[in-house]
Amino acid sequence: MRQITADQLDDIALGAAVLGTGGGGDPYVGKLMAKAAIERHGPVTLLDPDEVDDDALVIPSAMMGAPTVMLEKMPRGTEIVTAFKAIQAYLGRPAAATMSCEAGGLNSTTPFVVAAELGIPLVDADMMGRAFPELQMVTPTLYGIAATPMAIADEKGNSAIINTINNHWTETFARTMTVDMGCSAMIALFPMTGKQVKEAAVGRTITTIETIGRTIKASHREHHDPVEAVRAATNGFLIWQGKISDVARRTETGFARGEAAVAGIGDYGGKTLRISFQNEFLIAQTDDDVLVTTPDLITVLDAETGEPITTETLRYGFRVAVLAMPCDPRWRTPEGLRLVGPDYFGYQASYIPVEERYGEKGVSGGGAVR
Amino acid sequence: MRQITADQLDDIALGAAVLGTGGGGDPYVGKLMAKAAIERHGPVTLLDPDEVDDDALVIPSAMMGAPTVMLEKMPRGTEIVTAFKAIQAYLGRPAAATMSCEAGGLNSTTPFVVAAELGIPLVDADMMGRAFPELQMVTPTLYGIAATPMAIADEKGNSAIINTINNHWTETFARTMTVDMGCSAMIALFPMTGKQVKEAAVGRTITTIETIGRTIKASHREHHDPVEAVRAATNGFLIWQGKISDVARRTETGFARGEAAVAGIGDYGGKTLRISFQNEFLIAQTDDDVLVTTPDLITVLDAETGEPITTETLRYGFRVAVLAMPCDPRWRTPEGLRLVGPDYFGYQASYIPVEERYGEKGVSGGGAVR
Repeated sequence: MRQITADQLDDIALGAAVLGTGGGGDPYVGKLMAKAAIERHGPVTLLDPDEVDDDALVIPSAMMGAPTVMLEKMPRGTEIVTAFKAIQAYLGRPAAATMSCEAGGLNSTTPFVVAAELGIPLVDADMMGRAFPELQMVTPTLYGIAATPMAIADEKGNSAIINTINNHWTETFARTMTVDMGCSAMIALFPMTGKQVKEAAVGRTITTIETIGRTIKASHREHHDPVEAVRAATNGFLIWQGKISDVARRTETGFARGEAAVAGIGDYGGKTLRISFQNEFLIAQTDDDVLVTTPDLITVLDAETGEPITTETLRYGFRVAVLAMPCDPRWRTPEGLRLVGPDYFGYQASYIPVEERYGEKGVSGGGAVR
Repeated sequence: MRQITADQLDDIALGAAVLGTGGGGDPYVGKLMAKAAIERHGPVTLLDPDEVDDDALVIPSAMMGAPTVMLEKMPRGTEIVTAFKAIQAYLGRPAAATMSCEAGGLNSTTPFVVAAELGIPLVDADMMGRAFPELQMVTPTLYGIAATPMAIADEKGNSAIINTINNHWTETFARTMTVDMGCSAMIALFPMTGKQVKEAAVGRTITTIETIGRTIKASHREHHDPVEAVRAATNGFLIWQGKISDVARRTETGFARGEAAVAGIGDYGGKTLRISFQNEFLIAQTDDDVLVTTPDLITVLDAETGEPITTETLRYGFRVAVLAMPCDPRWRTPEGLRLVGPDYFGYQASYIPVEERYGEKGVSGGGAVR
């Protein structure tokens, strides 16, 4: 158990952008909301999963929608609390703690708002170990844990409690409702016991992203290579260096979809990497090869600062480095791949763990493919 | 207070098809469901609005969706009860009675299923005095009564409780959810007190449609003109006689939309009447004139039998008579016309009460325009 103050949110949000793999919403928005809430109500208690009582009620909270819209429709902060209060009222008891749905992007920090506003702790865990675009894409689904009852609310005062027969249906209803709500909504879902959290969540990921953020900052102070710092902190691999030569994006059915092209530089010269995204970067490939696919993580970093670039801020001409990182091992099971593998997203590629693609070359880390 | 047995549902459903103005779903489907429920559980008590306690909780129930789909996706009957039980659980108390949302079409009889299954009475009233395609289009909206909390459920076991800031938002969320649910869903909404029912509902409309149905049957037995019988029973006007020469229909955004052309016969020869519908018939016009518009009722009858024809059963070649009938006077107020007038549906026509268009010619009834 430790206290998280407003200052620590800078590192957490920076690390969240790395695991956000380009999506999950801009952590900057979540950080501002969380900082304001902590300044109003004081620090948030971060609970290690082991410190949560087995029968405690834990309710994760998040924002849902297209990151491109969230950027333009800045939440006031209190709306997340509306959804959370609605689910508590429906369940007839208060939650002992909240939790992040995603360790990547906006939703790593939005639950700090709930924790601060309601004076409850946040569990140091999430349900993905990264960010994914659909709400059934969480490790609790692999344990048969229901997403519902779930609450959804907009900033206007509309809300709903949804109950579904499986988590794919939850995604379906919540997604169209989110579109109706203006492509952005607040949600509270996957009510769990402490015992379920310990088994089914991805543990200690808030601490992980704080460490990643701190590492980037330290590399600036100490004049180390920030890209190499991120790579080392995430057990990742450098797979590309280049310049953004094209970006196509569109917002459809509540998602930010598109593709970025990265013209290779240096060792990667003469070739182009294409990275496709549906909120998050999901597959990186050249004309010849698939380099990385979901569920492993693909992150685009500013080549100079090592700071992660989201899909909505990608611009022509940016100099970038592309990292690949191993996902939580449960995503690599047959059930995990059915939920978040390349097939599900419609890509014609087999999933090969990133360590097999790059690690086998005998050199761990970025050097392997230079 | 009187008991409604399975036998009486034939007249009720037949009359409901007349006030259904082509839409509201085929009353035959609702009748089968209601008959089965009454055969399982015994007759349903029909309460006059005056017999409802002022503080009694009354919750209307209905099916929502595209009639074209409801025809193909026959409800089991128990799903309406699911939505009703969900709203009762949410409100924390049982309803004293249920009620019809529409006196027209399927939803005049579906609440009999709820009443029979749960052993509660049905109030002899509805919220439109006809059928309309959207759920905010009810007289309680004119009294500021909220549609929510509302329950919606599908036949698979998915459900939601919706809370909105106004009844237009309720329609928005419930409609997209209905589309997700396969274009047909069961709903329970507009929880009201008995006092609100007495003031804001359209009273005794179950008795009205039973009388209309009985009149059509009697005209067959006694060899009277059935079209004239319906006209007289509804204070209506005969506005057209002819043959269906074209029907265009499409199911979009959860609605059955389209247009029917009726080539005139006899007094109407040489001209064509075009009737546009969005679930219900909403405007009838020739190349020269607008003859009737919403909120007044437009009903297409089989010229031989006087039986009403729904938009989904309209076929080329049918010989028909078209009747227009006055709507509930509250629909003729500025607020009523904003909710259900020609403008709302996108028609370039002024609303003129049907009695002004036809009654002023000095002859009441169909003879006026022959």
